[in-house]
Amino acid sequence: MEAQSPTIRNAIGWSTGPVANPKEQFMTNVSSIVHFHEGHAGMKQWLGGKGASLAEMTRAGLPVPPGFTVTTNVCRAFYENGNQLPEGLMPDIRNAILRIEQLKSQRFGDERNPLLFSVRSGSVTSMPGMMDTILNLGLNDATVLGLSGETKNARFAFDCYRRFIQMFGNVVFGVESIHFELLLHKLKQKYGYQQDRDVAAEAWTELIESYKLMIKNHTGNVFPQDVYIQLQLAVEAVFRSWNNPRAITYRNAYRIPDEQGTAVTIQSMVFGNKGDDCGTGVLFTRNPSTGEKKLYGEYLINAQGEDVVAGIRTPLPINEMNKEMPHIYSQLTDIAKQLELLNKDVQDIEFTVEQNKLFILQTRNGKRTAQAAIKIAVDLVDEGIILAEEALKRIEMEHLDQLLHRAIDSEQQLDTIAKGLNASPGAASGRAVFDADTAVDWKLAGHKVILVCAETSPDDIHGVIASEGVLTSRGGMTSHAAVVARGMGKPCVCGCEEIRIDKMNRHFYVAGPGGLEENCRKVHEGDWITLDGSTGRVILGTVSLKEPEMTGELTRLLQFADGIRRLKVLANADNPEDARKARQFGAEGIGLCRTEHMFMSSARLPVVQSMILAEHQAERQHSLDQLLPMQQEDFEGIFAAMEGLPVNIRLLDPPLHEFLPKLELLQQRQRESANKDEETNKLIRKVQSLHEVNPMLGQRGCRLGIVVPEIYEMQLKAIFKAILACKEKGMKVRPEIMIPLVGHVNELKRVRELADRVAADILGEDHHVDYKVGTMIEVPRAALTADQIAKEADFFSFGTNDLTQMTFGYSRDDAEGKFLSSYVDQQILPDNPFQVLDAEGVGQLIEIALHKGRKANPALKTGVCGEHGGDPRSIRFCHSAGLDYISCSPYRVPMARIAAAQALLTID
Amino acid sequence: MEAQSPTIRNAIGWSTGPVANPKEQFMTNVSSIVHFHEGHAGMKQWLGGKGASLAEMTRAGLPVPPGFTVTTNVCRAFYENGNQLPEGLMPDIRNAILRIEQLKSQRFGDERNPLLFSVRSGSVTSMPGMMDTILNLGLNDATVLGLSGETKNARFAFDCYRRFIQMFGNVVFGVESIHFELLLHKLKQKYGYQQDRDVAAEAWTELIESYKLMIKNHTGNVFPQDVYIQLQLAVEAVFRSWNNPRAITYRNAYRIPDEQGTAVTIQSMVFGNKGDDCGTGVLFTRNPSTGEKKLYGEYLINAQGEDVVAGIRTPLPINEMNKEMPHIYSQLTDIAKQLELLNKDVQDIEFTVEQNKLFILQTRNGKRTAQAAIKIAVDLVDEGIILAEEALKRIEMEHLDQLLHRAIDSEQQLDTIAKGLNASPGAASGRAVFDADTAVDWKLAGHKVILVCAETSPDDIHGVIASEGVLTSRGGMTSHAAVVARGMGKPCVCGCEEIRIDKMNRHFYVAGPGGLEENCRKVHEGDWITLDGSTGRVILGTVSLKEPEMTGELTRLLQFADGIRRLKVLANADNPEDARKARQFGAEGIGLCRTEHMFMSSARLPVVQSMILAEHQAERQHSLDQLLPMQQEDFEGIFAAMEGLPVNIRLLDPPLHEFLPKLELLQQRQRESANKDEETNKLIRKVQSLHEVNPMLGQRGCRLGIVVPEIYEMQLKAIFKAILACKEKGMKVRPEIMIPLVGHVNELKRVRELADRVAADILGEDHHVDYKVGTMIEVPRAALTADQIAKEADFFSFGTNDLTQMTFGYSRDDAEGKFLSSYVDQQILPDNPFQVLDAEGVGQLIEIALHKGRKANPALKTGVCGEHGGDPRSIRFCHSAGLDYISCSPYRVPMARIAAAQALLTID
Repeated sequence: MEAQSPTIRNAIGWSTGPVANPKEQFMTNVSSIVHFHEGHAGMKQWLGGKGASLAEMTRAGLPVPPGFTVTTNVCRAFYENGNQLPEGLMPDIRNAILRIEQLKSQRFGDERNPLLFSVRSGSVTSMPGMMDTILNLGLNDATVLGLSGETKNARFAFDCYRRFIQMFGNVVFGVESIHFELLLHKLKQKYGYQQDRDVAAEAWTELIESYKLMIKNHTGNVFPQDVYIQLQLAVEAVFRSWNNPRAITYRNAYRIPDEQGTAVTIQSMVFGNKGDDCGTGVLFTRNPSTGEKKLYGEYLINAQGEDVVAGIRTPLPINEMNKEMPHIYSQLTDIAKQLELLNKDVQDIEFTVEQNKLFILQTRNGKRTAQAAIKIAVDLVDEGIILAEEALKRIEMEHLDQLLHRAIDSEQQLDTIAKGLNASPGAASGRAVFDADTAVDWKLAGHKVILVCAETSPDDIHGVIASEGVLTSRGGMTSHAAVVARGMGKPCVCGCEEIRIDKMNRHFYVAGPGGLEENCRKVHEGDWITLDGSTGRVILGTVSLKEPEMTGELTRLLQFADGIRRLKVLANADNPEDARKARQFGAEGIGLCRTEHMFMSSARLPVVQSMILAEHQAERQHSLDQLLPMQQEDFEGIFAAMEGLPVNIRLLDPPLHEFLPKLELLQQRQRESANKDEETNKLIRKVQSLHEVNPMLGQRGCRLGIVVPEIYEMQLKAIFKAILACKEKGMKVRPEIMIPLVGHVNELKRVRELADRVAADILGEDHHVDYKVGTMIEVPRAALTADQIAKEADFFSFGTNDLTQMTFGYSRDDAEGKFLSSYVDQQILPDNPFQVLDAEGVGQLIEIALHKGRKANPALKTGVCGEHGGDPRSIRFCHSAGLDYISCSPYRVPMARIAAAQALLTID
Repeated sequence: MEAQSPTIRNAIGWSTGPVANPKEQFMTNVSSIVHFHEGHAGMKQWLGGKGASLAEMTRAGLPVPPGFTVTTNVCRAFYENGNQLPEGLMPDIRNAILRIEQLKSQRFGDERNPLLFSVRSGSVTSMPGMMDTILNLGLNDATVLGLSGETKNARFAFDCYRRFIQMFGNVVFGVESIHFELLLHKLKQKYGYQQDRDVAAEAWTELIESYKLMIKNHTGNVFPQDVYIQLQLAVEAVFRSWNNPRAITYRNAYRIPDEQGTAVTIQSMVFGNKGDDCGTGVLFTRNPSTGEKKLYGEYLINAQGEDVVAGIRTPLPINEMNKEMPHIYSQLTDIAKQLELLNKDVQDIEFTVEQNKLFILQTRNGKRTAQAAIKIAVDLVDEGIILAEEALKRIEMEHLDQLLHRAIDSEQQLDTIAKGLNASPGAASGRAVFDADTAVDWKLAGHKVILVCAETSPDDIHGVIASEGVLTSRGGMTSHAAVVARGMGKPCVCGCEEIRIDKMNRHFYVAGPGGLEENCRKVHEGDWITLDGSTGRVILGTVSLKEPEMTGELTRLLQFADGIRRLKVLANADNPEDARKARQFGAEGIGLCRTEHMFMSSARLPVVQSMILAEHQAERQHSLDQLLPMQQEDFEGIFAAMEGLPVNIRLLDPPLHEFLPKLELLQQRQRESANKDEETNKLIRKVQSLHEVNPMLGQRGCRLGIVVPEIYEMQLKAIFKAILACKEKGMKVRPEIMIPLVGHVNELKRVRELADRVAADILGEDHHVDYKVGTMIEVPRAALTADQIAKEADFFSFGTNDLTQMTFGYSRDDAEGKFLSSYVDQQILPDNPFQVLDAEGVGQLIEIALHKGRKANPALKTGVCGEHGGDPRSIRFCHSAGLDYISCSPYRVPMARIAAAQALLTID
């Protein structure tokens, strides 16, 4: 993108200074024709992208088939001249061709050894939908015989000729391709040919004649035998294509000035099938699977590209060439090195050898696997070819995602029975189970399990914990199952509508062909299945898996990133195990520890429930007293795992009804019990009294903490007792206490007073523990009144999940299944805002809160702890907005470290 | 508040220029003593509030008992002098008293006809909790006999003396009142007196002696018999009280400068019980019940105020005085006129006649009923006493509320059985019914009904429509029932937890005393009850009601308001009847017509349901085709009622499941039906598929309109067909189409395109109907991106109900019953934000949206159509923010017109 015109820069939103009249910048004295060896990359404006790149390679001394470019100046002249080529152009082209004839020792239109050309359009900005390439221009009824003799392959020569006529007829005379295809189809029917490669030379000549006739009948034009007329018509057609409706629409859309015009690149053809001193091949400068620094590729002697594609002959590995064509091989080795240096990346090179002479037809950056991408980037840095910054910029996040999760060994035959959404990456095998309790039971009995259900809810969290992965038939990329699984780094396939779950009979099935039940595949509880969360595949049976690799190269790359990024990267972790994992992945602390997850384990849930059901203060306090040492133990473990690093603990957030069974379940239990079940009745009454129409906007977070202060008081006691215990062991703890769902400064004030009082009680008045108290900013009102709130807060942690829900007014649980995917499909929204942070709306609130908050409290620490903390585009926003940190699932920490560095490199 | 010091002005938040050293402003040459006839209101700084007011009345020539004020300068000198009175003060006071003695022809300390004084503190700013008044100073063992002789009432004289000793002992010597009260209690026990008025003169003398002894024993001080020593000690005590802890705390809290000091007002006492040429009474300058311009009050010959209070004698109406004391009556008539002119309001005057001489003891603005308040305000304008602006400023909104609804005739005996929240004002009687369908059936059968249920939901709307009023046992001031009833102007008593509803057995009961069921009051279906929505009372039986009065005075007042206000006042109305009512109340158009209410009637609901249950596009279209003419008819009716005024129609807003029966109900139906009920099963499946976790944030509003565009298309067709029909009848229509729940500009763009297309189809391309298309701003994101949205919108209507829900993250249905009342009680929030618009948060979003929206589209019309449009404090905000209009329930339109004028008068 280096040589874009200022107008284009404007069009894509870069700020530039005032731009000169775009017409003026094309007034130059560049001549109408530029040979490849005369041009360079800086002349893109006149040579177009293709012409400039061929010139640059030629200039670097690489053996590119010679050719020249008719510049964009000529295109402008063509239009000023009433769609006529300028007068002197064709003589100039003749002269240029003369020069190519000398270089190639061939002649254009020669009947024995004809020089052929490719003719291509070449706009300055890449414009898909413009005119195609015309190959083999220069073939006619006479020269085709020459090509046939030279290649000793009449079938090949006539095939080239009929292809040329088709391209020419289409591009120059405007005959639609379908007419050519119909004639070919008839021919094959007539002779019983199955495939194109079966067609004999004689049949091709028959087709050629019918092509010519058809063109004549359709357009009145006669296919020209004069090669210069062929050339002139082709050049004119390219220029005309600049103003075809598609091209005009495209230019309008991308604000490409009409005055830019197109160039025409005319390059001599080479052939690898003229004998045993010829050949063709493809070469990677490094191994694209492993990244190993060794030439990788294959070639065929005496062949054209088509032969390789058609699969008639098996190509040889590139190192075999060292024996067969040592001179060419050594030349290729040098060229590979040279092209890597020139393009500063692995190259994917196409080459042809024509009568012992090597030609490079094309080079481009090579596609590679995740593992190779990392190794190559780091190696290029070590070799001094690129800087660490450049290496980081090149890393694609999908590559990292692949690397950091277990994956299916790609060599296997898989019995894929269904496909859902690839909701959480990685792969896992286990026995299918159909509810959370069964998952726990089987896990305890030593089985690996996959939880399969219509959808999960917070009640099922113990089942998700017990499982290797989760499969749901409903719900989208941000459904409960997806979010929880991503948070835990477990594979998840969501919204897999092909499967029908019959929970009652403990199986699911996938309908057979035609949706018929008799042919369906049925999976019973206990059957092994495998999930591929990276692709959404559901596979029958077990599959061998590759463990994720934290290679030396990846570690190096992360070190590069750490040296560059400004954003700190913390992790969301709710237990000591996750905290340790996060630290291994390089987390600089815990940005969010959700205490409610500690309430969910099967040992604690009954205590939590009796706390909720308590009818008197004393009864409730009794349950809380039981929970206190459990919470304290959790906190001590997390503090120990994170010694010296900050640990941010969020007080209870969800509403109490999330800890109780569902009403439907209880009612069913009640109906089934013959006698009056007083316990169930009591539960039903409590669940009904806690029922909320919109639980998302109900009594939870600090609202609960203020109305029922005993719960927060217990949690605060557990935190400060844990701090005291760790201090007594000589550990350094950096605790932060986060109050959720604050919307008014008085809420924070109230809970902060409680925290300070509990701290003073437990640590003593003159303790030396530097604890922070702050709040989630997840309610729009909190962002808007951040100036007041910041006076009471040591930190703001933006809960972008809830903030997105409330700023858009979207319930995440409902939006995805209903209108959100439709909104993205219809382009009403550019992205799902739960995946990519909405900079315009939600981001605006974050910026308001940062601005107001920091003005009121310059020491304010700020970060994001929603799921967006693990999304690269959202991380870019966080960097731009000037946040101090992001916090994400432990498994996404490495990705976030790189993304944070990329954000700095591409924005600042 | 006219003469406040700049420092005070600062303290209450007024902006003032820089203030001089507060000490300096008290450096004046006002003398230490100022007689009432020497002072005026402008001297408040030196005379205190009381002193200045007495001076002003004296200055106006009114017969105020003579007296003088010791200025605040003396207080400052007292403190500078080490808590000693300045040397020359007591001689000055003696001179001042000499003058009073001359005026009153009495002597201070005289044993036959003693002159007595009241001594009061008098701070510049009113300071509750400062020292009390001392009355009857100058009584001692000798002068008490003089008073007894003069009044020929020994019991009265000694009662005055013992009261004086108590006040003096308390204020001067610091003896707590309880000690005096204990002695009185003992005395009454000793003689078997039931009440104070039973105590004989002899017993009072006994008490007086025990008081003196007790003071001596407690403090060592002897109660002084020397009247000048009494006076000196009283003045010193007043000055000391300036620095008592309560006063200091109060000054700190309200930032009253310590240097302000207090004055001491010393006024001669008068007695109305010295003979038949004496008397006492109370007088209103106009009738406080009706506002009639006629003296109103009562008096007693030869009596003191205590006699009236004690109820021993019955006072006479004031006009009787014209016979008994024609001279005094005529003087009072003049004074009443004079005081009204002076204070520019109805006066409540206390007076005493002492030996044929009239004294005015006090005057203040008189309390009055709602009806009187309106009449008086308008009359005062007509009489040229105040301007219309002032009349408007004085109107209290509660008064208007009372006037504009039916009310219980206050003279009746009522059988009130329970009390709930006064959720919607007005009163109504009807037969109790326990569900919405029964309400409709009974109404159709010609009965008046009151709907009684635990709570209402949108499913019950037809029942609310059919009822005279609604009584619920659950839910708060903003519960569904409350909101709907207020919107319809029907009385509603909510959250009446005392009643137990037994829907199954068709009755409710209120537990008897002690909560016992046997004594409970039971109300069966069909029994008459009456609701008083203004007080929350539930009354057994029917009650005679007063119709609301739109009096001539109220109409005049509204005309004043209309001439002043800048905010336009529109109404929310969903049918032609409400539209007509709104227009009668002065609405300048319809600001919100909720089309979903048109779907709820029993005739249409089945069609709506079959539209929702449709399985094919064609089936759905069939139902929509049936609905179209019904909607069109509604719109024609509303356009006709509002001819010439704007009518803003909101497209469908609620989610579809609100139109279907509740799941529980269906499941019950299914369980009860013996055979497989396929219809119910189908309904259950649909209800389940439409179920949302947080319906408030789900698929509704334009989200539904975009995903299922047929519904909006039908509504738009109905609107434009109605426009065409009205145009053909020669009517002038001003339609506005409102798109609900827009969060992203693309949503509005999409629906606007649809509207324009339908308009062109129906009206023809070159029609001349000036319709507007705009949006609710009710999602925070819409406010934040208002610059984009305004480009596609002709108007913004702030839906402050939903905007408050999303900005706070409060579900209205849940918050009120759970934490919100607790938040208001605990002062975490200043108000319920659903009642009073939250200016800091929600208001900030409105201001952001207005600023951005108007910048992008200067022609943008803006208003509020939430419930806040009917709340006076919220209307103040709307005025300040610069909105163009507010829209509220028809019944609140008059109130809103006045509030809009008040906002302008008190803000601009």
